[in-house]
Amino acid sequence: MAKSSYNIAIVGIGAVGTEMVRLLRARNFPVGQLTILARSEREETIDGEAYPVKTASPEAFEGIDFAFFAGTEGAKGASQTLGWEAVKRGCIVVDNGDDFRMDDRVPLVIPEINPDALARHRGLVANPNCSTIIALMALGPLHREAGIKRVVACTYQAVSGSGSSAVAELKEQAEAWVEGREMSSRVYPHPIAFNVIPQIGGVKDESGATSEEVKMANESRKILEDDSLQFVSTCVRVPVFNGHSEALHVEFDRPITPERAREILAAAEGVEVVDDVDSAVYPMPLASCGKENVAAGRIRPDITVENGLALFVAGDNLWKGAALNAIQIAEKMIALGVDSVPAESVEAS
Amino acid sequence: MAKSSYNIAIVGIGAVGTEMVRLLRARNFPVGQLTILARSEREETIDGEAYPVKTASPEAFEGIDFAFFAGTEGAKGASQTLGWEAVKRGCIVVDNGDDFRMDDRVPLVIPEINPDALARHRGLVANPNCSTIIALMALGPLHREAGIKRVVACTYQAVSGSGSSAVAELKEQAEAWVEGREMSSRVYPHPIAFNVIPQIGGVKDESGATSEEVKMANESRKILEDDSLQFVSTCVRVPVFNGHSEALHVEFDRPITPERAREILAAAEGVEVVDDVDSAVYPMPLASCGKENVAAGRIRPDITVENGLALFVAGDNLWKGAALNAIQIAEKMIALGVDSVPAESVEAS
Repeated sequence: MAKSSYNIAIVGIGAVGTEMVRLLRARNFPVGQLTILARSEREETIDGEAYPVKTASPEAFEGIDFAFFAGTEGAKGASQTLGWEAVKRGCIVVDNGDDFRMDDRVPLVIPEINPDALARHRGLVANPNCSTIIALMALGPLHREAGIKRVVACTYQAVSGSGSSAVAELKEQAEAWVEGREMSSRVYPHPIAFNVIPQIGGVKDESGATSEEVKMANESRKILEDDSLQFVSTCVRVPVFNGHSEALHVEFDRPITPERAREILAAAEGVEVVDDVDSAVYPMPLASCGKENVAAGRIRPDITVENGLALFVAGDNLWKGAALNAIQIAEKMIALGVDSVPAESVEAS
Repeated sequence: MAKSSYNIAIVGIGAVGTEMVRLLRARNFPVGQLTILARSEREETIDGEAYPVKTASPEAFEGIDFAFFAGTEGAKGASQTLGWEAVKRGCIVVDNGDDFRMDDRVPLVIPEINPDALARHRGLVANPNCSTIIALMALGPLHREAGIKRVVACTYQAVSGSGSSAVAELKEQAEAWVEGREMSSRVYPHPIAFNVIPQIGGVKDESGATSEEVKMANESRKILEDDSLQFVSTCVRVPVFNGHSEALHVEFDRPITPERAREILAAAEGVEVVDDVDSAVYPMPLASCGKENVAAGRIRPDITVENGLALFVAGDNLWKGAALNAIQIAEKMIALGVDSVPAESVEAS
């Protein structure tokens, strides 16, 4: 069923697009031709290798099997204009942006958590938000075991989630600080070095929640296919280059001990249990950078609610939170034999 | 009733002790003689002024009216050895350490929240943990209004809470990083620069909670005089020099709107409402440094529970979280006319 190789396009070549190029190579993804698309023609050098960048247009997707829309910075909104155009041309789109995540026509997938949703794809599949993925890698298996009633998530999110300009900003601010100069801010409204900023995304509605906080709730419900799931969060940017962390306080329908939770997570694909606080062993962003697995630790009872459990997770937001998950979606589609655009997709769009 | 001046001793002259010296001057506290006590004699220079440091001993407290035990680093444990010895000599002890906080003989006080507890003092008063103070400055007034059932607190704590050696460590690590050298760690088990560490204090018991997490729960119940209060937290160190922040998700007994919560907090002594996320206005540690007030913002409904509210707070942990609160305790004792050691205190100890 699977082809011997697939022609790949990457749309947008910022922080996430670059990691996609790296991961396709590192994972030996069966790449036929690799095309990089962006707003204008140029050449990009990644790890010493030059890649021609072509202008993204509907026609550019002719002959492409999988297009990964990196969905950050310059590439934002590209999937809205070009997503279904690519699908019309027989190209499967995996969109890392948030334009289609809550669209009923579009599966929202973490391959380890809800691969079945891929069977219903119509050509376009959405990659969840980085914080959602990192939380659900741990929460998904626990939900299957004991049923999650409510989650309170507080995030410690790295600047790489805002793209390479934010990484440069933290670097410049750290340098300015060390050299005794004033820190200047462009990407964030305040300095992020040696500070925390309790806002990720704008506030859309009366709820007072930021878009990141709204995404975590809505996406979790869609991925776990449970509309009754209560999910509230406070999303906070911290001065970390890469690697998102999250403190999760979870209320389950049924009892679950920390020991059982550790057992389940140790057996869960893509999760590593890192949990020995007496030996200073727990998830941390520095330790999660460049790792495929999401780390889970600080697993302990939360005795303030019935069937409560607290835990701490950390993962590479550019990898599992974005580029890696997108590529794993394509790999899973190939493995499941759903690696072509179904006939009825175009009319549906 | 109040004397025209008070002889003051500061025991331990690390990060907190130094701020105590500064704040006594800045607040025009009626200081007669100021004595600094530590483990050995030396001279300390603070803001260009030289202070002689004497050896702490029971006799050193003769003639002292208020002794502030800074309770960090080298001074840890000093109140255990010397606290009641000082009281025996007619000296009121305000202890910033955690040795006596849960002791039934000792009031645990935030002057804006539970000043009445001071009337019951027997010579020794405890200053709460920095994270407890910063949380309760906002939660106390809300508790009086609507009754708190349960709090989930996730902290973003600055390194200054671990003392000046930790401040130096973050500085050195930031410099090493900028200069391309490897970061070395002594105070923390891992680098804190560009990282987060989900452990503050050791784990004492089967609960898996760290001592900081246990303190926040127990101290909150004692200060709010409510044993039924459910309080769970995850305490996390972030690469911030000074200023603790906390995301609080709170469940109340009775309904309370964000508007009403803002009204209450705007009127609360020692609290500043900083809450306009659309204009990027919210509490942040950088903005809280060197401010007496605790900032509260991101006040919004938490619709995942009945009568739920979420908020974000930040405060200067060396000031309101430690040195300032201790001095305010003494100021309040003077104002309330309970500024001497009661006769029955020594036998009670």
